[in-house]
Amino acid sequence: MSAVTKPSRRIGGRAARVAQREADSKMAHIDMPAEGYSGGQYKPLSDHDVSRIHTSALHILETVGMGMMGDITEGAKKILEMGGELSDQRRILFPRALIEDMLATTTKSWTLHGLDPDNNIEISHKGAHYGTAGGAVEILDFETGIYREPTLDDLYDSARLIDTLPNIHWCYRPLIARDMPDVDALDINTAYALLSGTTKPWGITLGSAENVKKAISMFDMVLGGEGRFKSQPSCHMVQGAGVPPLRFANDRCIIKEEAIRQGMPIMIASAPQAGATSPAALAGTIVQVVAEVLAGLTYANAIAPGHPCNFAAWPFVSDLRTGAMSGGSGEQALLAAAVAQMSDFYGLPSSVPAGMADSKLPDAQSGAEKAYTTALAGLAGANMVHESAGMHASLLGFALESLVIDNDMLGNVQRLIRGIEVTDETLSTHVIEDVILKGPGHYLGHDQTLGLMESEYHYPALADRATPREWQENGAKDIVARAKTQVRATLSSHYPSHIDPKLDAEIRARFDIRLPESHMTSTGGRW
Amino acid sequence: MSAVTKPSRRIGGRAARVAQREADSKMAHIDMPAEGYSGGQYKPLSDHDVSRIHTSALHILETVGMGMMGDITEGAKKILEMGGELSDQRRILFPRALIEDMLATTTKSWTLHGLDPDNNIEISHKGAHYGTAGGAVEILDFETGIYREPTLDDLYDSARLIDTLPNIHWCYRPLIARDMPDVDALDINTAYALLSGTTKPWGITLGSAENVKKAISMFDMVLGGEGRFKSQPSCHMVQGAGVPPLRFANDRCIIKEEAIRQGMPIMIASAPQAGATSPAALAGTIVQVVAEVLAGLTYANAIAPGHPCNFAAWPFVSDLRTGAMSGGSGEQALLAAAVAQMSDFYGLPSSVPAGMADSKLPDAQSGAEKAYTTALAGLAGANMVHESAGMHASLLGFALESLVIDNDMLGNVQRLIRGIEVTDETLSTHVIEDVILKGPGHYLGHDQTLGLMESEYHYPALADRATPREWQENGAKDIVARAKTQVRATLSSHYPSHIDPKLDAEIRARFDIRLPESHMTSTGGRW
Repeated sequence: MSAVTKPSRRIGGRAARVAQREADSKMAHIDMPAEGYSGGQYKPLSDHDVSRIHTSALHILETVGMGMMGDITEGAKKILEMGGELSDQRRILFPRALIEDMLATTTKSWTLHGLDPDNNIEISHKGAHYGTAGGAVEILDFETGIYREPTLDDLYDSARLIDTLPNIHWCYRPLIARDMPDVDALDINTAYALLSGTTKPWGITLGSAENVKKAISMFDMVLGGEGRFKSQPSCHMVQGAGVPPLRFANDRCIIKEEAIRQGMPIMIASAPQAGATSPAALAGTIVQVVAEVLAGLTYANAIAPGHPCNFAAWPFVSDLRTGAMSGGSGEQALLAAAVAQMSDFYGLPSSVPAGMADSKLPDAQSGAEKAYTTALAGLAGANMVHESAGMHASLLGFALESLVIDNDMLGNVQRLIRGIEVTDETLSTHVIEDVILKGPGHYLGHDQTLGLMESEYHYPALADRATPREWQENGAKDIVARAKTQVRATLSSHYPSHIDPKLDAEIRARFDIRLPESHMTSTGGRW
Repeated sequence: MSAVTKPSRRIGGRAARVAQREADSKMAHIDMPAEGYSGGQYKPLSDHDVSRIHTSALHILETVGMGMMGDITEGAKKILEMGGELSDQRRILFPRALIEDMLATTTKSWTLHGLDPDNNIEISHKGAHYGTAGGAVEILDFETGIYREPTLDDLYDSARLIDTLPNIHWCYRPLIARDMPDVDALDINTAYALLSGTTKPWGITLGSAENVKKAISMFDMVLGGEGRFKSQPSCHMVQGAGVPPLRFANDRCIIKEEAIRQGMPIMIASAPQAGATSPAALAGTIVQVVAEVLAGLTYANAIAPGHPCNFAAWPFVSDLRTGAMSGGSGEQALLAAAVAQMSDFYGLPSSVPAGMADSKLPDAQSGAEKAYTTALAGLAGANMVHESAGMHASLLGFALESLVIDNDMLGNVQRLIRGIEVTDETLSTHVIEDVILKGPGHYLGHDQTLGLMESEYHYPALADRATPREWQENGAKDIVARAKTQVRATLSSHYPSHIDPKLDAEIRARFDIRLPESHMTSTGGRW
């Protein structure tokens, strides 16, 4: 049995129960079916385009294949045993049959667990889910509005904020806690901040195979004992194991292998930059990234056939005039949507990056950049949309208030993906005849209107729909001002209590936890 | 010959020529092919859904038809002569054959002219074009940030700002000049502000049949003489002639008839509000609005077969909790995209509303609302996207700085519609082989990269792509601050001079023009 308590019993008596109910009401669950709403209504590529890209990617895998930076790894050896070939240039070439065998056997669906099962999400090539990814190296300071280095406190705060936001489906660590002294402290404390901050699924990037073991042993403690993580994986990793163009990196492959052995679901990612580490032609970048991800999937399945994996083509765009990455460009939206469509063509679950604003702060620029990238990704059939909340400056920056703003936007985006239901009833011919030929000539108060008010329409929590006059009377606030109010209210009160204090003490005894207990209560005075 | 001079010769000598060159450089032309980029990659409805909606709309036209508010009009009489039937409830019923005949004969393509032919746009059921529509009754004051009533000066300023913005393809009057004493002064001065403010195509809503004649006689003067407008229509009108649900209004029909006789292209619009004047079920609202627009098109073609018209289904969403219109909702984006798809099914040019933010000012809320509504409309195949720049508060409000911000966003949106080119060359297999097997292992400086830098990528004018550090060093400005700088620079210098002073004097002699000449020069001190 899990050692996680729900609700927890940190404090006793009636006051405690009231406090708990309030806390529970803020622990908003995911606001859609666990399998998500199905995209695919948007197809940036024609069927013929898809087929040509697929054929070209197979050709590249046969003729160019993947280089290996460093010694040949165990996974690479297995690929060679399974039919891969080592070229004169020490490149691993993938015959078409090897890729086709992998496509037939690789996992088509899996579950990403939350500590609270109501937050589980079902991953396949159908539904769309939205969450964060990493890892910003700067944060827009909530008080000063000036960028600074993020801390472990910021990470914990972002996790418990996400815990309350129904349209963000997991908490991948969105920022790097730069107050940690080394990679070991960073990895362990990142894991701890996630598991203590939210009962939604987690995501983490770890710096060594040893830290994969350590993090999972900590997750096991929370999940109820050794081996529990493997049976209900609650944390995933974006791990490319490659360095574009078309190379495996020995050190990353070793981390990936360990994560697979430990049962951690992997986003098999490749993140080339068009015009720098992949062709400047968008179609050419898609060909290369598809080849890289197919190679990475073959690698993962060579280690553990059927391991939970996503096709995670993450092609990036840079501004070719300056070399600066542009996560908010139209080209970025097209690339993410196109690779989601490619993954759908293979019938595989996908991960794509979207929501990466170029803008440094939540303004009209970031609003537009985030909206068209996240909407088109989901409508093109993406299954896990990473980087979809909180991010700025093309992943260099992060803002707490943007989590709240983006959660609101993602509610609308999920409404778009849900689409229009067309049935005998919704076509409403009888309602129209009724209202006009027999009725009052309007639909206000009609049974259908009252019946559909809640189900057909999504009501955002933060977006303002008042008239100019009402809005001015209410203080003429923009969405940032409203979001900041919500951030402060949440972070000053929502200190999740799903980890039993006894268990917390055991974790602290076993691991070098740097998050002070005093920072994890409302009396700590941080907010 | 046109009396419009290009460049004009208001002032003489070298200084004048320099000034003229500067003015010309700011008179940015439309930044895409005249026929627009082709959408259709996004299909919110399945083919089966489309077919059922079409059948249901025909059924409604046969059984419920259109009521008539007021006396039966000339157009309605013609419909009855052509096979329409008057029901016991005094409703005009449309047999299926009547609609099918109209669909076969109605215009499939036409040209909306600019005063400068480089600004002409070609309208069909293929390309997407973006522009403004009306009509805000409040403006966010540029200096104070407080909403106030708009003036004729504001309208003239918005026209000349649009004149410089390459991704806004026409200037429909976006606001109501509320300093005009009556509808006649409003109509005439609105026409004048448009024609003197921009050489892009215009759009106007007029309050009487008499004013249609007057406005077109003014346009004729500018175009070179009586009858010129008819041969090169440079102004269009959104004119529904109906009052949902399913009624013609006598007074609006009379305006529409006059506009058709005068050769003015018409957006055959119907704008029901789901849950109030059309069913709360989105599919039902689509059925009703399709029926209304098919009836309106039949009406227009009864007056003048083949007259330039667009299928302008404008279904609106209101927040059913409060009754407030919500132009920025996900449901609004779905409805606009779906009716664009219906129009495409008929092979007709369409107009849909998108870009209507609920937000009262250009913030992250408005950025998101505008982006997903305008992107999905174009991707679904909309041909003229009205309301796509400058609008706030679900069409109640307008902001000059939002024209500049939205122009930037629309550049990205048009890049999305342009899509990904897949050819032997762009698939880049030879480039990939070349770079990795023989070359430097990266694509920087490759011939393909240098060759595609300008053509494959769109570079926004206003969006900031700097790092947090660079951005902070540059003053940490949000997009509103940058847009305001551009508005001020443009409006203090760009006073279009395409109307010859002699012609201007003739217009002023013939019409009651309220825009002071002193407000139309940089020495006027308004900016």
